This record gives sequence, C-alpha cells and structure tokens, in this order.
Amino acid sequence: MFSSISDTVTESRFFVMPHDSNAIGRLHGGVLMEWMVSAAALCGVRFSKGEVVLAALDDLFFMNPVSVGDMVVVKAWIEYAGHSSMEVGVAAYAYPGIVGEPRLTTTSHMVFVAVDRAGSPRPLPTKIKPTRDEEQLYSLAEKRAEKRRSILADRKTMSLDISEYGPDARFRMKSSHLVSPSDATMGGIMSGGKLLHLLDEMAGALAISYAKTVAVTGSVDSTSFHHPIRQGSIIDVELVLTGVGRSSAEIAAKVITENPSSGVRRHAATTYFTMVAVDSEGKPVPMPPFEPANEGEEKRLKAMQARREARQRRFEEIQAFEPLHEVIGHGKR
Amino acid sequence: MFSSISDTVTESRFFVMPHDSNAIGRLHGGVLMEWMVSAAALCGVRFSKGEVVLAALDDLFFMNPVSVGDMVVVKAWIEYAGHSSMEVGVAAYAYPGIVGEPRLTTTSHMVFVAVDRAGSPRPLPTKIKPTRDEEQLYSLAEKRAEKRRSILADRKTMSLDISEYGPDARFRMKSSHLVSPSDATMGGIMSGGKLLHLLDEMAGALAISYAKTVAVTGSVDSTSFHHPIRQGSIIDVELVLTGVGRSSAEIAAKVITENPSSGVRRHAATTYFTMVAVDSEGKPVPMPPFEPANEGEEKRLKAMQARREARQRRFEEIQAFEPLHEVIGHGKR
Amino acid sequence: MFSSISDTVTESRFFVMPHDSNAIGRLHGGVLMEWMVSAAALCGVRFSKGEVVLAALDDLFFMNPVSVGDMVVVKAWIEYAGHSSMEVGVAAYAYPGIVGEPRLTTTSHMVFVAVDRAGSPRPLPTKIKPTRDEEQLYSLAEKRAEKRRSILADRKTMSLDISEYGPDARFRMKSSHLVSPSDATMGGIMSGGKLLHLLDEMAGALAISYAKTVAVTGSVDSTSFHHPIRQGSIIDVELVLTGVGRSSAEIAAKVITENPSSGVRRHAATTYFTMVAVDSEGKPVPMPPFEPANEGEEKRLKAMQARREARQRRFEEIQAFEPLHEVIGHGKR
Repeated sequence: MFSSISDTVTESRFFVMPHDSNAIGRLHGGVLMEWMVSAAALCGVRFSKGEVVLAALDDLFFMNPVSVGDMVVVKAWIEYAGHSSMEVGVAAYAYPGIVGEPRLTTTSHMVFVAVDRAGSPRPLPTKIKPTRDEEQLYSLAEKRAEKRRSILADRKTMSLDISEYGPDARFRMKSSHLVSPSDATMGGIMSGGKLLHLLDEMAGALAISYAKTVAVTGSVDSTSFHHPIRQGSIIDVELVLTGVGRSSAEIAAKVITENPSSGVRRHAATTYFTMVAVDSEGKPVPMPPFEPANEGEEKRLKAMQARREARQRRFEEIQAFEPLHEVIGHGKR
Repeated sequence: MFSSISDTVTESRFFVMPHDSNAIGRLHGGVLMEWMVSAAALCGVRFSKGEVVLAALDDLFFMNPVSVGDMVVVKAWIEYAGHSSMEVGVAAYAYPGIVGEPRLTTTSHMVFVAVDRAGSPRPLPTKIKPTRDEEQLYSLAEKRAEKRRSILADRKTMSLDISEYGPDARFRMKSSHLVSPSDATMGGIMSGGKLLHLLDEMAGALAISYAKTVAVTGSVDSTSFHHPIRQGSIIDVELVLTGVGRSSAEIAAKVITENPSSGVRRHAATTYFTMVAVDSEGKPVPMPPFEPANEGEEKRLKAMQARREARQRRFEEIQAFEPLHEVIGHGKR
Repeated sequence: MFSSISDTVTESRFFVMPHDSNAIGRLHGGVLMEWMVSAAALCGVRFSKGEVVLAALDDLFFMNPVSVGDMVVVKAWIEYAGHSSMEVGVAAYAYPGIVGEPRLTTTSHMVFVAVDRAGSPRPLPTKIKPTRDEEQLYSLAEKRAEKRRSILADRKTMSLDISEYGPDARFRMKSSHLVSPSDATMGGIMSGGKLLHLLDEMAGALAISYAKTVAVTGSVDSTSFHHPIRQGSIIDVELVLTGVGRSSAEIAAKVITENPSSGVRRHAATTYFTMVAVDSEGKPVPMPPFEPANEGEEKRLKAMQARREARQRRFEEIQAFEPLHEVIGHGKR
C-alpha cells in the first residue's frame, strides 16, 4: 500500500493550564515535548497500524514562548517509511489566548519504530509515495533516515556504556525513579515524552541552581534512544552542566535503566539541553561565567563548544527548509 | 436479592485544587463531570459486584459555580435496575471553602451497564425494591429506562455513522488522541468521565475562540455512548459551533474511535455542550451574533433551536422533581 | 549476599509545582508523603530485586514548611533486612527556590515487604552487614523490626475489624473511591503513597471544617497496613476528629477495602493525623476548644491524649538519633 505525505497528517490540540507552567507563567518545555511526542506517536500508530516506540528525535528549538491560556496545535506527518521505522515530521503552533494568530513554536523530526507485542520491530504495512510537491521533503527525510541507520546500528554498543557521566563535574545532580504503569504506553514501555519531560524538569533545576535565576528550555539536541525502558524498572538520571554561553548553559542528561530482578543496567539515552537564564519578563539575562576547574570539565567544555556550533548550523538549516512544511498544509487552523 | 434505593447510596468527596480551575478561578465543568462519572461508577460497581461501563447520561445543568478551595460531595444511588443496566441518580454539592453551607451544583442520571471481563453485558445480581417513599422515584426511573431501551437498541446502527459532523461549518475544531492505559478503567475501556472532560475542554476552546471572552460550561445534553473506546485506540474528536443564543453558544462534539490495527472506525458518541460567555466576575456577557452562511449552518441552527427548547423543558422538569431526591437523604453532610 | 547500609542509599528529586500546594502556597503534606513512599519503595525494589508493598510506617513529623518552587530531595536506605521485610530509613530535604541551603523537612522509617507476582512474601536475596559506623543505626532498626513482628503478626486479626470508627462522633466525614489501575503499582496493589495522600487531603478538609481556618499537616502517626488494597476494589474512608489541642486537632482515618465481586470487606489501615490551624503566613492559630458531647467522644479524647504524649516522646527520640543519619551521608547535595 502507498500513501502520500499529506494523507498522513494528524492534528492534536492541547490547552495550557496553570499547572503546565513555570514560575513566570510560561509553558514548560518538558510539557510541550511530552505533547509533541504523544501527537507524533499517534501519527505513527495510525500509519503503522499498531504500537510504536520512539527511537530518536532531532533538535527541538523553542522559537516562541507559550503562556497559560494558550492553545497548542501539534501536527504530525510521515515523511519517509522504511522497513519498520518512520521519519515523522512534527510542528507545534501556539494560539495566544486561544483566539490569537498561530505562531510556530517548535518543529522537529522524530523516528518511531513499529513494534509487536514483544517489543520487536515489525514491518510497516504502507510505504510513502510522495506527490510532486512532496518530493523534496521526501528525499530530505530519506537522507536523514540513511544517516540514522548507522546510529541505530550502534544502539547495542551504545547501550552498554553505563559509565558515570562526568564524575568530576562540580555542577551535577542525580535522581532515581521507578517507572510505574502510568508512565508507560500500551506495550509497557516508558513513554518517550514522559522521559523528556522528566529530564527537562531536572535540567531546568540544575540550570537554576547554577544561575540563581529562572531558566527556561531553549533547545534539546538530537537524541537517540539506545535501550527501551520497561515499566517496573528503575531509572538513574544524571545531569551535568558542561559549559556556559552568554546567557545559556548546556546540561547533559544521561539515563541508565536498571532491571531490578537481574540487576542488568543499560544506557537508555543521553541528551543535551540548552537552558536560558531569563528575567521575570522572559528576557535573557547573563549566566555566571564558567571556568573549567579540572581536566574533565575542560574536555566537556570543548565538546560542548563543538556541539554548540553544529546546533547553530542546524538551526539555520531548519529555518531554510521551513517553507517545505507549508507543503503538507499545516499553518491552517 | 433486593435492595431499597436508599441502601445503595454512595458518597465521594473531592477537593477543588488550583489546577482544576479555569482562568477565573472556577471549577472546570469537565473536571466536575469526571468526578460525577467516577462516583456514579463506584455506586454501579458496588451494586453490580463488578466492572461497569457508562452507556448514557442525562442532561447536566451547572446550577452554581464552584471555586478553588471548595469541597465537592458527590452522592450516587441506584434508582432502577434492569437485566444488566442501572439507572444511577447522581448529585453534586459544593461546600464553599469547605466550611460553607452546601449548594446543589448539578444533578443527572447516568446509565451504567454491568459487563464481564470481555466487555459483554452480564446480569445484575440484585433488583431494586423501593420503599413506599421511594416509589415515585422508582417509577420515573423505570419509565426513563423504557424510553432508553429503543435508543440503546439503536446503538449498533448509530455506531456506524462515521460521517464528518458539519463539514461546511465555519467554526469547527478537530483533535486526535491516543487512548492510554491511564485513561482506562479496569476493563481497558476509556473512562466516560475522562472523555467528557476532554470534550468539555475542547468545547470551551471553540466557544472562547468564537466569543473572544472566557466561556464556561452551562450544560451538557443527554448523551448516548454508541461504542466503547478501548485503550490503545485512536479517537478523533470533531467540535462544531451549531448556533448562538444571547450569551451562550451550542457546541456539538462528535467522537469517532478507530482501531489502529484493523482501521475500523466507529461513532462512539455525539453530545451537545452549552457554553456561556462570562466576564471576569463570572457574569454572562453577550456572544457575537451568529448568522448562518450556508445550507448546513442553517440546518444545524434550526436543529439547535429545537434542542434548546427541549433542554429548557427538561430543566424545568428536573427542578420539579428535585424534592424527590430528598427522599434518598442527600443534602445531609 | 551482604551489603552495608550506605551502599543501599538511593536519592530521588521532586519539584514543587503550584498544583502541589495548598491555599497558602505550601507543599501539601499528602504530596510529600507520596514522594517519600515512592522514593522508599524504589530503594526497596532495588535492594530486594523485585516488587514491594508498604507494610508500616513510623511517625512522620513535618519540621519545616516547603513552598512552591522548592526542590525536594528524598534519600532512602535499608537499615535492616529480615526474611522478607526491610526497615527503610527515609529523609526529605527541601532546597528553597532550588538554590537555597537544604533543610531537613521530615524523616521516617517505613517497612516494605518483598512480594512475588501473587502478592505473597518472598525471601530477600541480600542481608545488611553494617560497617562499624553503622552499627548503632543497625541495632536500633533491628529492635524496631522485633517490636513490629508482633504487630505484623496481628495483621490478620486487625484486618477483620471492619466496625465503623466513632459512629457517635459529631465531627466526621466519609468518602468512597474506586481504586483505578493508575493508583496501583506494578503488582496491582494500591500505592501506599497515594493512599496517604488521599487520607491527608480528607483529614485536612475535616480540620478546616472544624477550625474554619486553613489547616496544615503537622504529623502522621506510625501506621500499619493490615490488608493490601487491590486495583478494582472500593475503599471506604472514615475520618473522625478525636480531640483538639491548643492549635492542632487529631483526626483518625480508618480505611475499609471492599472486594466488589465477593462483597468481602477488610480493615486496610487506621492512622492518626495531627492537623495544625494556621494563618495566611503559616503561623499556628488557636483551634476552637473541643468539649466531648457523648461517651464515645470522651473515650476517644482520652485515647487521643495518650497518643499525644507518646508522640511527643517519639519526636524527642527522633531528634536525639538524628545525628546517626549523618552516618549514611545524606545532607550532601
């Protein structure tokens, strides 16, 4: 079976309640990510006719703040379908106070893998056959999927790296949690959206404790999920401040999942958050400067600077390809 | 086995937290409905000695606003028990600031069907044998149950109507959601209360986007649930503004449920919300007038006006029979 | 296998959101208890390599208020491990506004029993072998465990007492709830933390309705859980005001669990909350004096006064042994 990209578009609405907001009345980045992942998962479930798990996501840049009382519309669509994995495009629009003009808040690409009851990949029943207008979007997605293949092939190796992240870091936090049934989706796997929400909350706390001001999520780097997190397992979350820019700090978040009965530990994911220090109006304010104090901190600062440049390039790329999204018709109410 | 009506009364308490409230500090109608359905389900579970699903509910009129800090007491009781379905009376009282005198907030009748593990109806172990004082209440409930029989018999036919509601409507909204395990009750069926909560939220958003003011729930029309919504399925929710009164708008909400693996779609329910435009004190303010702009809008406006008159009549009926409820002893703390 | 106490320490972080707070912006005692139980359960799951249930908890004294915007770190550790039950030490620290100096908020001991899939006790795979520094902590825990043995042996007898608590009390409240899958842990047993949260909410409401002021949780007495509460069952919660001090009231909370299909009812737990009347700054204010009006009230008042003295003694004991906790290294960030 074949489908065009535009035939796969799904649309989900969410309303920003006071409990979704931070100290200055803005929507938490973590909540928005949870919404985006759940809307993209819905799109993947409908297209693949069954359960899906989040395998990777591309950078998320938070371009416009969202406030209590706004409505968020998340559109998701399949740009490319391989054997069992899908490249899902996702865009979130905010309607200020429900009645205002929609503003693009963030876009991303997420990769979902179709799985059977046992959690093993299953073949997709449908392929994407782009219309002429969709061809460029399709070929970009195909290229991303190819690049990702090597990363996904490394999953097993990556999942074995259960070393502590930055043990010599001065600015770090740790937290452990039990994954309960209500954190999990149908197949008993922890929802990727809930995990990102939790990491974002902790990254925010570490940034605040460093900056001594409110800090909000500026972006999340592209992330691969190396190992599924099952309900009933324990997760150990490690947060490390890797470096600081003028008004932002990069926080690395590494997640180790532990099967309590066997004691086996696996590296589930590592991701990088950019947190921005802001005043009570939401305007960026300077972060205290960061001087590396040991070898590890120096090494991590260098790596952080490289990621920062790559991130800036990708942000420009995303903006260049933005008009392509118009093709699949989002932006309409 | 036999039981009087008053022997079936259950009582559940809820506390209105800031996150249960809307922009003007009032309890969301959707939250209150969720509480009422969960309290009535408890009553049905106890009486039927097993799992129940919500099959229908009568009009809900929100008579008094409820605020953050109030306590809500929901009483529920079985008025009539047929082969496998129960007519459950339910009344919600608000105690302002916990310490104030209770005020009746809303009453309704809900129909629950006792089901087995497979979701098929199972016979009730007990019948209602009213005491003398309860006879009138019982015979009214019996009549309602009879009327409902023909509606319930139509369930299958109704469930096949998966057409789009008002495709030519200018004021409409659509949203899709995955039904997660935490939306479901024991038997894996989506909780009727959670569904009503979601619909209410979206009906409010459509009313606000039309009125450009805060809008609160005035009433919900009697609703039949044609098809159960299972966890893991997708729901497509369509909201359409059908017409406008002086300070209220009627919003139709149609829910289609889709089994992702088979792709089979069913009409789960259609219901009508009356949303009232209010100022920051909660006082009704005029809605912008509505002029139908096409044939469909004209047709829906006429149907809306007929429903509105019927609704007004039922509101008067409800107030007339209100004293009957005193029989089963609610109103006491 | 053997482990020292300090090798068992786990650490979990929580962030106080507006929806976790009461009318004066303070963290609800019930939410804090839910966090503490979930952190202690995690520690028990990791140590026992499987599912655990809460069997008992010692007094919880709320020593310092926690506010919206604070971070709470909960540390938990195994002090003694018997055949299948563990004495878990647990301490909650609040970091004001995330950046402030940590303050000890509350400590407690909880007993968790390792259970298999059927909910029956299973042997622990590891024993505690204290280091020299930990010896006093260990021997105190061992003594507590011994004392508790007789209480735990009484579980069955206690669970049969389904009588109404204080039927002649003038100040009482009742509420019934269905235990949904999202209230339960992996094994389908209601989370002890969720139960304590619910009881705290209702105890607060009864205290407020008596005092006609805001009331906050001062302490919770040591509690035994006589019977597990399974998902799908009904709980009947009875709250009774037993007596009043200068600015606090004691509220007894008795929980009966009912299996809806068999109708069998069991006494799940009884616990005592001390609720403190406060002004808008959180400062204690006088409670209206309480004069017993019947025999039952007189009897309960006497029992309450005895518990109060014992509670005061235990509070002093806890403060005396506090330095021991330093041994296991909490207090560090």
